[in-house]
Amino acid sequence: MVVELISVGTELLLGNIVNTNAAYLSEKCAELGMSLYYEVTVGDNPERLLDAVTTACNRSDIVILTGGLGPTKDDLTKETVAKALNLSLVEDSHTRERIEKYFERSIYKVITNNNWKQAEIIEGCKVIDNDNGTAPGLIVETKEDKRVILLPGPPNEMIPMFEKDIFDYLNQIRPNVIFSKMVKISGMGESFVETQITDLIEAQSNPTIAPYAKCGEVHLRVTASAPTIEEAKKLVKPVVKELKERFKENVYTTDEAETLEYAVVKLLKKYDLTLATAESCTGGLFTGRIVNVSGASDVLKEGFITYSNKAKKKNLDVNKNTLKKYGAVSEQCAKEMAKGAAINTDSDVAVAITGIAGPDGGTDEKPVGLVYIGCFVNGKVTVKEFNFKGNRQKVRDNAVVYALDLLRRCILDNYK
Amino acid sequence: MVVELISVGTELLLGNIVNTNAAYLSEKCAELGMSLYYEVTVGDNPERLLDAVTTACNRSDIVILTGGLGPTKDDLTKETVAKALNLSLVEDSHTRERIEKYFERSIYKVITNNNWKQAEIIEGCKVIDNDNGTAPGLIVETKEDKRVILLPGPPNEMIPMFEKDIFDYLNQIRPNVIFSKMVKISGMGESFVETQITDLIEAQSNPTIAPYAKCGEVHLRVTASAPTIEEAKKLVKPVVKELKERFKENVYTTDEAETLEYAVVKLLKKYDLTLATAESCTGGLFTGRIVNVSGASDVLKEGFITYSNKAKKKNLDVNKNTLKKYGAVSEQCAKEMAKGAAINTDSDVAVAITGIAGPDGGTDEKPVGLVYIGCFVNGKVTVKEFNFKGNRQKVRDNAVVYALDLLRRCILDNYK
Repeated sequence: MVVELISVGTELLLGNIVNTNAAYLSEKCAELGMSLYYEVTVGDNPERLLDAVTTACNRSDIVILTGGLGPTKDDLTKETVAKALNLSLVEDSHTRERIEKYFERSIYKVITNNNWKQAEIIEGCKVIDNDNGTAPGLIVETKEDKRVILLPGPPNEMIPMFEKDIFDYLNQIRPNVIFSKMVKISGMGESFVETQITDLIEAQSNPTIAPYAKCGEVHLRVTASAPTIEEAKKLVKPVVKELKERFKENVYTTDEAETLEYAVVKLLKKYDLTLATAESCTGGLFTGRIVNVSGASDVLKEGFITYSNKAKKKNLDVNKNTLKKYGAVSEQCAKEMAKGAAINTDSDVAVAITGIAGPDGGTDEKPVGLVYIGCFVNGKVTVKEFNFKGNRQKVRDNAVVYALDLLRRCILDNYK
Repeated sequence: MVVELISVGTELLLGNIVNTNAAYLSEKCAELGMSLYYEVTVGDNPERLLDAVTTACNRSDIVILTGGLGPTKDDLTKETVAKALNLSLVEDSHTRERIEKYFERSIYKVITNNNWKQAEIIEGCKVIDNDNGTAPGLIVETKEDKRVILLPGPPNEMIPMFEKDIFDYLNQIRPNVIFSKMVKISGMGESFVETQITDLIEAQSNPTIAPYAKCGEVHLRVTASAPTIEEAKKLVKPVVKELKERFKENVYTTDEAETLEYAVVKLLKKYDLTLATAESCTGGLFTGRIVNVSGASDVLKEGFITYSNKAKKKNLDVNKNTLKKYGAVSEQCAKEMAKGAAINTDSDVAVAITGIAGPDGGTDEKPVGLVYIGCFVNGKVTVKEFNFKGNRQKVRDNAVVYALDLLRRCILDNYK
């Protein structure tokens, strides 16, 4: 089954916003085993949108449109799709009621007239309720066996709607249903991960394994297709088991929604450990990632951003001779930073990061990208040296992910 | 002049990466006053790419392709464009030499044979050197007066190439050249900014003013078109002056490349001030933004991430009665945090952030999104209360931007 995406909105063509919807829907189509051949972006222009919809309906089986469902005059996705398919717009009383209720709950008590435009639907379509806004999603099934799906543009409305209703709808119209599971690996490079599973990838047919490289992480999506969801799950299970056996503690989760920082905070909570941080080149970004997790306050005691040598000495008790002899970017300094952070805050574990993020400050001996990460767990400090490639941003992003990974491994080594 | 973008790469259609190139090029086309009607993404498939190139050449004057110029078999943008335009590929000795030199400098001393594919160009095209990779950009001008521009896919190669050569090329083929200047405003909402310049926007023809809303910031692009760049500059100048007069200290820069954190670090350096930070709900993100600026170490003394009340008392000398009486998320606590951070680190200025990022922890009295930002400058502390909307991420991002903005304003108030 061939899918085509049409993103509607002049703000996309002016570069005001980045099209993250397209990336999200592309990944979902891949997960569903559907072939996405074209993605098209058009502005809020009736002729060009009509042209795009007509072309898409001719060459694809399923057309997914995002955007242009709002209340303003510029919003004309519904009108244009109706015209392309030779259908009319009719008012949907269920949606009208939902809009009324939405405004009752909101701070805007007055419903301006243009909002009722959002209660109009294409005749004969399925209406998909929007739990995070007023414009519903619409699914039109044509006589020619094409499916045209209209979704709201804001990602915080589109994504929940897709996950709640559209994914299952697309899964059901496939000849088989699919089921997939994500195996998330941290601290290993993509090419190394791939060499470890070449045999599985070469032999694969159903389930398939698709690697997704992220900064410092590799996600392997295992997808099976079968007549029922139970059978698909049965096919996925042994492959996930095999991957977990091959990658052992490198796998931090098989839960799609779980991030690396979430896995780390979960581990800290599990073993009832408190955390302190000491950051130099990452300047707070590591702790910022930990605080991404709602409830991180249960484990995070304190963080120190010690950019200067003076701050390293004062807050972390780094020895001045260490700084003199080895420098601030050294294994020894990382070790003392981690130890000092743990002891001075009376925390069970501590992470320290010191390195050269660039673009200035590198030497032949200590080049840009050199980073030491120290981890204090159970009275011992483990320090690892890294040489990250890329610009300032990339070096710092990598340092944060590898620090999360080292913390995770040290906890497992000591407490598992 | 009508432009069309074609992004080439199966990795885009699988959702492996977000298409930031499209957003960048869209904004540049808007800046150049060129009309972008369609953006199309296709995979590494010769038939569908040929179809996309042919369609684009029929309906648009300028076609810009990104991606598919690399050394592998999958890379077929050059081959396909040549086929669509009925032209041949020929080897370019200048590019071959550049590839040789590139590999001499790199850690890979052996040039595999497939790399020479990148020295092939479309006959009669202009070759644009790639300073950050091996695949050059190509500009083909057809007999039908169409222009087809091929650019490498990686943003760190494409963007420098566009800024160095492609922007000027496109500017020169316009009937007039354009010149634009960005007026960047922080700490004001988009709709408020727009109401202040309704008269200018309604009366505009040349130059035009285009607002771009960012988190906590509004950027106004002033663009003029004229026969020469000097004349265009002359048209832009009084409008920028007018905007600066209307928005006064709300404008933090008119330099396109300058970020808010850069402007803040520049101000600190100008007045020879040192900075300390104290973060609660932002957990290090504010200091991480400051450290984005290469050379931030000249001003940043120390940062404290004080998530717990204990840490607030210990590192920032927040009074325990303050915490008891008013709570950690209060004007009083923010005030003491800022003061404590400055005094304990002997810094000239300090910023403190305390708030409820959510999703948990909100009450009727202190809802999610309530954030206090304190700024210690010249012995005085200024505290501002904010009620940010949105999820945990959005509340924290807003808190960081408004803290940068408050710091900027407090320095200006005291030292300007």
